[in-house]
Amino acid sequence: MSAATDVVAFLGPAGTFTETAARTLAAGTDDASLRACRDVLEVLRTVERGEAGRGVVPIENTLEGSVTATLDALAFETDLLIHGELELPVALVLAAPAGTTLDAVTTVRSHVVALGASRRWLSEHVGDAEQIPSASTARAAQEVADLGAGHAAVVNPLAATRYGLEVLAEGLSDRPGNMTRFVTIGRTLPAPTGWDKTSLVVFIDRNRPGALLDLLEVFAERDLDLTKIESRPTKTELGEYCFFLDVEGHVADERVGDALAAVHRTQRDLRFLGSYRRSGARKREEAERIARDDAAFRTSAAWLADLRGRIGPSA
Amino acid sequence: MSAATDVVAFLGPAGTFTETAARTLAAGTDDASLRACRDVLEVLRTVERGEAGRGVVPIENTLEGSVTATLDALAFETDLLIHGELELPVALVLAAPAGTTLDAVTTVRSHVVALGASRRWLSEHVGDAEQIPSASTARAAQEVADLGAGHAAVVNPLAATRYGLEVLAEGLSDRPGNMTRFVTIGRTLPAPTGWDKTSLVVFIDRNRPGALLDLLEVFAERDLDLTKIESRPTKTELGEYCFFLDVEGHVADERVGDALAAVHRTQRDLRFLGSYRRSGARKREEAERIARDDAAFRTSAAWLADLRGRIGPSA
Amino acid sequence: MSAATDVVAFLGPAGTFTETAARTLAAGTDDASLRACRDVLEVLRTVERGEAGRGVVPIENTLEGSVTATLDALAFETDLLIHGELELPVALVLAAPAGTTLDAVTTVRSHVVALGASRRWLSEHVGDAEQIPSASTARAAQEVADLGAGHAAVVNPLAATRYGLEVLAEGLSDRPGNMTRFVTIGRTLPAPTGWDKTSLVVFIDRNRPGALLDLLEVFAERDLDLTKIESRPTKTELGEYCFFLDVEGHVADERVGDALAAVHRTQRDLRFLGSYRRSGARKREEAERIARDDAAFRTSAAWLADLRGRIGPSA
Amino acid sequence: MSAATDVVAFLGPAGTFTETAARTLAAGTDDASLRACRDVLEVLRTVERGEAGRGVVPIENTLEGSVTATLDALAFETDLLIHGELELPVALVLAAPAGTTLDAVTTVRSHVVALGASRRWLSEHVGDAEQIPSASTARAAQEVADLGAGHAAVVNPLAATRYGLEVLAEGLSDRPGNMTRFVTIGRTLPAPTGWDKTSLVVFIDRNRPGALLDLLEVFAERDLDLTKIESRPTKTELGEYCFFLDVEGHVADERVGDALAAVHRTQRDLRFLGSYRRSGARKREEAERIARDDAAFRTSAAWLADLRGRIGPSA
Repeated sequence: MSAATDVVAFLGPAGTFTETAARTLAAGTDDASLRACRDVLEVLRTVERGEAGRGVVPIENTLEGSVTATLDALAFETDLLIHGELELPVALVLAAPAGTTLDAVTTVRSHVVALGASRRWLSEHVGDAEQIPSASTARAAQEVADLGAGHAAVVNPLAATRYGLEVLAEGLSDRPGNMTRFVTIGRTLPAPTGWDKTSLVVFIDRNRPGALLDLLEVFAERDLDLTKIESRPTKTELGEYCFFLDVEGHVADERVGDALAAVHRTQRDLRFLGSYRRSGARKREEAERIARDDAAFRTSAAWLADLRGRIGPSA
Repeated sequence: MSAATDVVAFLGPAGTFTETAARTLAAGTDDASLRACRDVLEVLRTVERGEAGRGVVPIENTLEGSVTATLDALAFETDLLIHGELELPVALVLAAPAGTTLDAVTTVRSHVVALGASRRWLSEHVGDAEQIPSASTARAAQEVADLGAGHAAVVNPLAATRYGLEVLAEGLSDRPGNMTRFVTIGRTLPAPTGWDKTSLVVFIDRNRPGALLDLLEVFAERDLDLTKIESRPTKTELGEYCFFLDVEGHVADERVGDALAAVHRTQRDLRFLGSYRRSGARKREEAERIARDDAAFRTSAAWLADLRGRIGPSA
Repeated sequence: MSAATDVVAFLGPAGTFTETAARTLAAGTDDASLRACRDVLEVLRTVERGEAGRGVVPIENTLEGSVTATLDALAFETDLLIHGELELPVALVLAAPAGTTLDAVTTVRSHVVALGASRRWLSEHVGDAEQIPSASTARAAQEVADLGAGHAAVVNPLAATRYGLEVLAEGLSDRPGNMTRFVTIGRTLPAPTGWDKTSLVVFIDRNRPGALLDLLEVFAERDLDLTKIESRPTKTELGEYCFFLDVEGHVADERVGDALAAVHRTQRDLRFLGSYRRSGARKREEAERIARDDAAFRTSAAWLADLRGRIGPSA
Repeated sequence: MSAATDVVAFLGPAGTFTETAARTLAAGTDDASLRACRDVLEVLRTVERGEAGRGVVPIENTLEGSVTATLDALAFETDLLIHGELELPVALVLAAPAGTTLDAVTTVRSHVVALGASRRWLSEHVGDAEQIPSASTARAAQEVADLGAGHAAVVNPLAATRYGLEVLAEGLSDRPGNMTRFVTIGRTLPAPTGWDKTSLVVFIDRNRPGALLDLLEVFAERDLDLTKIESRPTKTELGEYCFFLDVEGHVADERVGDALAAVHRTQRDLRFLGSYRRSGARKREEAERIARDDAAFRTSAAWLADLRGRIGPSA
């Protein structure tokens, strides 16, 4: 039996891309340590209560549409922090109960975005089948498994396996390069690794013209690259926005910390979502540039300290 | 029978908030002129083919989660333009087949966001019922109607009526002020009304630092207020973003046209989504300010023309 | 006898660098057509009254210190426009009445800035001589001619000739690369030549934070390079500033005209000082870049016109 | 006899406005402690060698034209710092040797800017007199004293007294509000007084577009008001500029120090000219605003320290 800290809570149902991500992140642990949750909030609550050490949720993808729920939950519903990220390619297959052939498919079920992403393939190969939207790809697999032969679902390979479906065709997506990004969630703030990123949410004052310009300038002034910027309604009123930002580096770095203090000082509010290792291999050239910029930052701090050391009595 | 131009295509299924919006916009027309479409793309195609004169789709709301599909479809899949907008308050009721009492409810179905918005109410009144996500609130109503007594759905009142359900409770939303914004879509560009807004999508060059800052400056320089700014991935690659902007005024206005030409000139690409009447009553003070700013614009243009009129031969 | 339009008024007294500039600009005309004026204002008034066709004044140099007077006069005292510019290298010589040797020099006179520019040479070669400031280098020459042998002046070669002085030494300036820039002034606005610049003075509203930032953004947005930016007090109050700007291109160019209209619209006040041919040979690469940028400007204007052509009746 | 540290070196000759300023600043000391210097550089060198404790030079005025020399000397020729500032109203009188009446005045001498400032008065009262430029107002007084009756000078009252001239008329300036600003120079950096300003020179990289915009943003981001911004050529090449800035507050203040470190880090070069008490009485409201802004700065720094304190081991 696993200790609670070994448990990984993930956004279910079983069979979604998120389970694939959770298995990749928790490689080597037994199945018992994976716990499927009904929604993003339940993942967060499970970790908050200490029943799981980590949570895994999708944060950016082009198929499941659950990104919004994750962003909002991280911004408004918890104090947990992001611990890491993982990107997985999206694979869509057509799956059906045993004994179903392509010709015999009368309905195709999936999340509406997965149906849209497979539009061309479906039109060419099962153009006469009725398309029925489901709440998720995994739920479509479950429904099809219940309905039996003649019904098919557009799902990822794991869902086909889990619900005992046969794969009728692979590679349905019109855009083969699609990726989904997942994040691991935890209760602590990990130390810098030399190849990190920092996520935050900034609430700007809409009544102050130029507030967004000011926000972007804070990072530009410090030569910090924003790898993501995305606005979201704050949920209290149409027309009020907050901004999700990903910035290179760790809050322990001079420049990143200074930028965050500046945002804290100049904007209405700020929620720190975490500093964590970036996905992908460390790029030497980029890491060296970051180190160089940090050195310039320390040189200026030393110059200032030196100058202040000269202060004498009043004139 | 209605002529094709009288037909209003809307995002179905029947019974969603969008049908309510379509009925409000098409007041006085017969039911035959309303056509429910499977997804946003089908709404657009129906109008493009001339089978409907207008389309109605939700563009910004906190419940249905379909905003993303609308934004992407408008930006990437059509040349149609926005003709107008409408905001409706979101009303959530618990509905069930005749004969079901609150105590007898064993499952509650709805779109996952509607379930989330009613979390507190559901926990207090039907805390033991299983919550099952559906593809939309209307689909939840349909499922519940099929399943019979003991099953309930969180839906809007129209869906309850349409699927023959009884309303067990009203006002489920935790945030009573929730609104949904809908847009009408058409093939033409309407004339200015004096109380307009303009929507556009801007594709910025991520390799040019400061491109987003430059974009915001174009509007700030011309004293044009942005009533919305929202980034979206461009769907081709994680990390590439475009920006949806709403700006006060009509492209026929001097300042708005000039700003759009500047964006066209300085940014990688630009898609014009339409100039149309803003929702809500015309605010006199704000309209006067816009008129004043436009007058200043014309004064400067006249000053420049006068100056250029003085140009003689070479020195 | 010359017609009034052939007369060139220049900042005197005779023998200054400005006379050299005036002779270069009026090459081939007789001496009678050159008229020395007491100060910059008199040059402007002479041209305004039609007694001269052109005026020549220094506008930027490191020796005479008269730049300020020229800038202020152009900004506040006249409606004349700049017609062209000329840059001349600064040559400083030590000149004295006939019969004076270096050893015998007891006083050295010149404008205080010319004395400063020759500080090292004077210290090494006539270190014992008293240095006496004069109102201009030409006036120093005149004083020395009146005083006779034993007195010397730091002047340009023309002044030595004109006042009958002998040149004791050449190349006194500590910084041999010094240049002076002169402008020609007239009553008309010359046509574009394809290699032009535009000068203006902008009065910003100090009570509006960010006004200077906005001003610079107007040019940055249009990819217009500022070849000069210089602040000056407005003379009415310490702490109130205006800005002298030189921008590439001619007001007849799309981009330059548009930028000037934007400045006219967004800043407190603006004085157009002229569009005229830039000094130096036309640089092909730079001229091509300017032409390319102008083409992009026209493309965007055409795009806007096309869009507006689609406007129909109200929705 | 005064100790060297009591000596005040000032820009001579005796009788200029600068002597008036030096006397105001050195109130209560004997005449022997005032030392007139030939030019700004000599003032600086006298203090650098320890022969004087303080220097006094004009830095901004509308009459003497020596501002440029002061700015350049402070920026390029010394490591001394500004210790304080003083503003004096400019008073211009017409002075002449005893026995001269207005009717008998044949020549009027002064610095060319003082002649310009009195243009209207001179034209109305001594319109027939020849105007002859001098190197300074004090020098004009000396010349007139040498020439005797019939000659007059436009000078400040102190010069009239010093050279034994009689005042024929007062209030000659066309703009009665004219002020001159002087600065005291020393070898140390005074402690903050709660009502300070900081002066610096910034050398921007002209090849980096937007460098000036970045510079202004550094102060805007920190809500620091610039009370002066003035560009100057760097003296090595026409077209290369540096910027003289005055900013509210002392380098010991959190915000000012942070801004200076940011300028040091992001711009090509920077020369710190000093932090010193502002002229004028402390304005309570403004001082409170500055204190409030500083508190916000410290709050953000504490927030950052707290956040960094949470950093644990790697994820």
